[in-house]
Amino acid sequence: MLEEIADADFSLLAQLLAYTLKTGGKRVRPALTLISGKFYDYDAALLVPMAAAIELLHTATLVHDDIVDNSPVRRGKPTVSRAWGKDRALLLGDYLFAKAGSLVASTGNLRAIKLFSRTLMTISAGELRQTGVTFTMAKVREYYFAWIGAKTACLFSTSTESGAILSQAPEEAIQAIRDYGHNLGMAFQIIDDVLDFIGREDELGKPVGSDLREGTLTLPTILFLESNPEDELINKVIAKKYAEGISQAVDRIRNSRVIDDCLAMASEFCHKACHAAEKLPDNRARKSLIDLADYIVQRRK
Amino acid sequence: MLEEIADADFSLLAQLLAYTLKTGGKRVRPALTLISGKFYDYDAALLVPMAAAIELLHTATLVHDDIVDNSPVRRGKPTVSRAWGKDRALLLGDYLFAKAGSLVASTGNLRAIKLFSRTLMTISAGELRQTGVTFTMAKVREYYFAWIGAKTACLFSTSTESGAILSQAPEEAIQAIRDYGHNLGMAFQIIDDVLDFIGREDELGKPVGSDLREGTLTLPTILFLESNPEDELINKVIAKKYAEGISQAVDRIRNSRVIDDCLAMASEFCHKACHAAEKLPDNRARKSLIDLADYIVQRRK
Repeated sequence: MLEEIADADFSLLAQLLAYTLKTGGKRVRPALTLISGKFYDYDAALLVPMAAAIELLHTATLVHDDIVDNSPVRRGKPTVSRAWGKDRALLLGDYLFAKAGSLVASTGNLRAIKLFSRTLMTISAGELRQTGVTFTMAKVREYYFAWIGAKTACLFSTSTESGAILSQAPEEAIQAIRDYGHNLGMAFQIIDDVLDFIGREDELGKPVGSDLREGTLTLPTILFLESNPEDELINKVIAKKYAEGISQAVDRIRNSRVIDDCLAMASEFCHKACHAAEKLPDNRARKSLIDLADYIVQRRK
Repeated sequence: MLEEIADADFSLLAQLLAYTLKTGGKRVRPALTLISGKFYDYDAALLVPMAAAIELLHTATLVHDDIVDNSPVRRGKPTVSRAWGKDRALLLGDYLFAKAGSLVASTGNLRAIKLFSRTLMTISAGELRQTGVTFTMAKVREYYFAWIGAKTACLFSTSTESGAILSQAPEEAIQAIRDYGHNLGMAFQIIDDVLDFIGREDELGKPVGSDLREGTLTLPTILFLESNPEDELINKVIAKKYAEGISQAVDRIRNSRVIDDCLAMASEFCHKACHAAEKLPDNRARKSLIDLADYIVQRRK
């Protein structure tokens, strides 16, 4: 379905869509929608467009984020912003939002449509808030969890919740699968942030230490600074005043105990996710959700 | 309603929304939605959110356009992009798209929802196409009309069509009011492009000659070049190779007969708009639509 979308009506748009959509990625979010639709009345005619819309919305936010973060590389190749220019990246993102909205509208399900537009509000408001944050160390962990809740967990819970809504799940099942998605998303983002320290560039498809380079405080750095508030190297790097020190800073955090602490927190979220999933009917779909949670904490790319 | 939206849940967003929404503008598009809703079952609970969504979508596209065009000033004050930075402008635009989508979803009308998401697709695809155009002079007029159709007339026709849909207008009336909106939008954009040559900076809220400065070919320049293909000054200016010549180029085009030709074309579109409106019931709302068309060709800001 995503590849069909790339068959656009003029060649620049078709090229941009192909460049953006045919590069794979893990497709975790649309998989969640399809699996979440398997507990009750599975209807591919509704679930497939919804899943495609979820992936398009995700892609649109990545395309826009890469403009804001000035990121050179994503999934092992130049970002749209680098390859085609920021202006086209901006307009492509807008088009993807619209196409996603159009696919959701095609389901004809008002509850799914409303959920979807609230999700984009949450994601963009969360990113905006992030640009204006001046935080004290006492609040930074709280900000981090609110931020990844808005930027990642919200779309994960929409992925699962929309699958449940479109398959006529009862209200308690919708609630359970939304909880599953939210907690899975929190775990997913923590692992992502850990991989930025312990991953390998060839597996990540982007340089290690990207967050530190941007001065972005993620959980490993936050936990490290909570224990070592005066660390001169880390403080200079996150203030973007010591670019040469980034790989040394990555090493210092990677070799500290905070990585294990982060992995434990991610496992805790996965545990909550699985606990929520246990309220669903015991079938192959439930097994898939639980396997996916295991994969997410084990993944190294 | 728009001012209520500015009452957001954190201060940066509230400031950005206030900056963007409390600056007036003509509000032509939401007025069209409300007037178009007056021919059949006027329901403010549906039409007001729809009208607000139309204005938010329009505002979002302006905020993003000002990033792409690097525009310094809009409506007499710095653009969001200049005042708050491109990154925040980008995220604010995304938030406005989402908020607009959410308002349309609140109407619960699937036809209006689908129309709205198609509109955003048309607008963003049209702008994208524009970034990739290499045209021959023989095709440029055709490209211009396709471009203003996508960037302006599409949202005008959505403004009127959505008002008709939400007031349970019969199919022929929906068609007539959509035609009205489309033709009015074409006229509106031509006048806008003419005002960039003949307007006054204090009335326009932006410098005269902005399009020429960007190398953007609009109808006055296109008609001028059709008659004077070898004009050295104009060709150098639109190739962005002669910034010092802009005000001389503006004068040359303003003092030529092409301005009258453009105004005649705008009048022709307005005439088609009024002709479409005559298929609607003869009442005060119809009088308003016809008065609005007159205002649009007469306006000087």
